[in-house]
Amino acid sequence: MNDQELLVLSKCSLFKSLKLGEIKKLLNTISCSTMKYGKNKVLKIRGESYENLLIVLKGSLEAEINDLSGKTVKIETLKSPSIVASGILFASDPSLPVTLTTGSSGESTLLVIPKESVITLFTSSPVILTNYLRDTGDKINFLAEKIRLFKFSNLKQKTAGYLLDVSARQKSDTITMPYTKEIIAEIFGVTRPSLSRVFSELASEKIISQKGRILTIMDRKALLSILRDSELR
Amino acid sequence: MNDQELLVLSKCSLFKSLKLGEIKKLLNTISCSTMKYGKNKVLKIRGESYENLLIVLKGSLEAEINDLSGKTVKIETLKSPSIVASGILFASDPSLPVTLTTGSSGESTLLVIPKESVITLFTSSPVILTNYLRDTGDKINFLAEKIRLFKFSNLKQKTAGYLLDVSARQKSDTITMPYTKEIIAEIFGVTRPSLSRVFSELASEKIISQKGRILTIMDRKALLSILRDSELR
Repeated sequence: MNDQELLVLSKCSLFKSLKLGEIKKLLNTISCSTMKYGKNKVLKIRGESYENLLIVLKGSLEAEINDLSGKTVKIETLKSPSIVASGILFASDPSLPVTLTTGSSGESTLLVIPKESVITLFTSSPVILTNYLRDTGDKINFLAEKIRLFKFSNLKQKTAGYLLDVSARQKSDTITMPYTKEIIAEIFGVTRPSLSRVFSELASEKIISQKGRILTIMDRKALLSILRDSELR
Repeated sequence: MNDQELLVLSKCSLFKSLKLGEIKKLLNTISCSTMKYGKNKVLKIRGESYENLLIVLKGSLEAEINDLSGKTVKIETLKSPSIVASGILFASDPSLPVTLTTGSSGESTLLVIPKESVITLFTSSPVILTNYLRDTGDKINFLAEKIRLFKFSNLKQKTAGYLLDVSARQKSDTITMPYTKEIIAEIFGVTRPSLSRVFSELASEKIISQKGRILTIMDRKALLSILRDSELR
């Protein structure tokens, strides 16, 4: 691995809080390799067993599935320095739920770490272990939140439901948003601009006010009445 | 911890593949405690930070939320020897998504392991670590599957969609069911008998046949036509 790649790796959530030198030293104790791929290459087919942790060092990977009519649907773009499918690696059924291909924009480089070496990293560095556990824990929170919001039918209702939920958990009308708008948009399955539009709408209707990550619910009744429709279903 | 409790603990997925003696020795190296609670006690309120891993040794815990009208809704019963909220413990936002209460049937005993001691267990026993990672990985697979199935409107469609999906992943008409019917029912959000009824129906219509965990899709076209309705939405 060259210095440029090592620098990218140090920005990956798995190596958070570790210095470049420490990462280099840890990688020297395990077997791992880098692989380069041209554009539009299929790396792994949906259903294949996922036995090595992949980290995108350069370029990006596309996660795709074929729907029942055979059409390819893009699920997610994994840009460097993403960890690929951290949750699946240790699951009872480690089969990939998506097909992984390299993007259409250029060469991609991946770091490939065999499962056993990942365990070795964990036992030699509690920092890497807690980083990994944080990543999978966040993924569980993310998916569970997505499921909770399924009952709301439109974006304004999802937003109202989400804000009331965070407020109930933090037991206050003034809340610290747990996620950035990018991630909330991802949970809701909408674009970031659509989400911002709803937040602006709620602010101009004096239902909420926001300053950075601190948001105040000014008119709880109005938020509840937005929800009423979907709650009746 | 008494011998009876240790025996229960050895059946918990976190300690899978470990002998009683090994578990006892490992627990002696960390700080942990057991707590007894009477029935109908609130242990943790939704939104509270989850800093100690809880394992149910005796009795059960109820996971509940209050809906927006204030009504208490039961989400899940955690029977001994369940691990409680393994994913949340290490998440960026470790606040509990549910209120935890003891059941109404009798006394409950919990094993309480502080987060740092859990990390100590992981670094001293790769078996416990992989058990924990398997649990969180399975939870991610479970939630992701639940989300995939949301687009299907009724139970027969969910079942058809699920079977075609497993078949696509295993690339065969003869598939090994990755989960028991209990867990599939949980993923679908239905009772086990309702699910069995749909499987029997599909079998009597000669669309599938099943022997233990091996299931054969005999009429793929029929399964696809069950889906057609929901795919058109």
